[in-house]
Amino acid sequence: MNKIEHIGIAVKSIEKSNTLFASLFGEEHYKIEEVASEGVKTSFFKTGPNKIELLEATKPDSPIAKFIEKKGEGIHHIAFAVDNIESEIKRLQNEGFTVLNEVPKKGADNKLVAFLHPKTTNGVLIELCQDIKS
Amino acid sequence: MNKIEHIGIAVKSIEKSNTLFASLFGEEHYKIEEVASEGVKTSFFKTGPNKIELLEATKPDSPIAKFIEKKGEGIHHIAFAVDNIESEIKRLQNEGFTVLNEVPKKGADNKLVAFLHPKTTNGVLIELCQDIKS
Repeated sequence: MNKIEHIGIAVKSIEKSNTLFASLFGEEHYKIEEVASEGVKTSFFKTGPNKIELLEATKPDSPIAKFIEKKGEGIHHIAFAVDNIESEIKRLQNEGFTVLNEVPKKGADNKLVAFLHPKTTNGVLIELCQDIKS
Repeated sequence: MNKIEHIGIAVKSIEKSNTLFASLFGEEHYKIEEVASEGVKTSFFKTGPNKIELLEATKPDSPIAKFIEKKGEGIHHIAFAVDNIESEIKRLQNEGFTVLNEVPKKGADNKLVAFLHPKTTNGVLIELCQDIKS
């Protein structure tokens, strides 16, 4: 794993949180993107080599809506950048981690992504992500 | 803020979690450090420009013991690297954030640190940290 690619934060209102995080970083978000398949609207901030991804639910059965209902707003996942997501999935399965997407799926920000089950990672939802080469 | 310096993860057993995260990263932790004033033992992993800090409570009234009791193991805080912690504290107070340590304190890994109250940051406990120049 090369670095923390981003941290995903579940928020009730992207609009309000965009203002909040712009004050925090002293810089505006650089992108808004909806991932319809996941029922989320995302907003991205840069902080050096890393990003912060705000996540707002766009439908009641979105994983983000369920997360906020259960735990409130807050950190939802950590995403690590990998060069080859298929080989990392295989390596981590061999190490005993439960990979939720054996076949990586298309995520926000032009990435292929896969998640590890938090039960095998100390309660931390971990995302692997690889740039989609065009 | 220059980058994500580290993510702090509350764990019940540093020993067990060191094994787990070494499997995850394919690389061992590089440091164990106790911060007696905070009642925590920490362990650090590198992932490119970023770090993961595992946190185990060393006494029952440690903030980490209380966190795990309430929420279980998982992500505890995000730390951002700053060049000048005093000026960042002032800037953030002016922006309306509640800074828990107006005078930065000595944290793990040779840092001066200060925390922002999660009530002003969408439920996310944010740490600012600056290298202590020797």
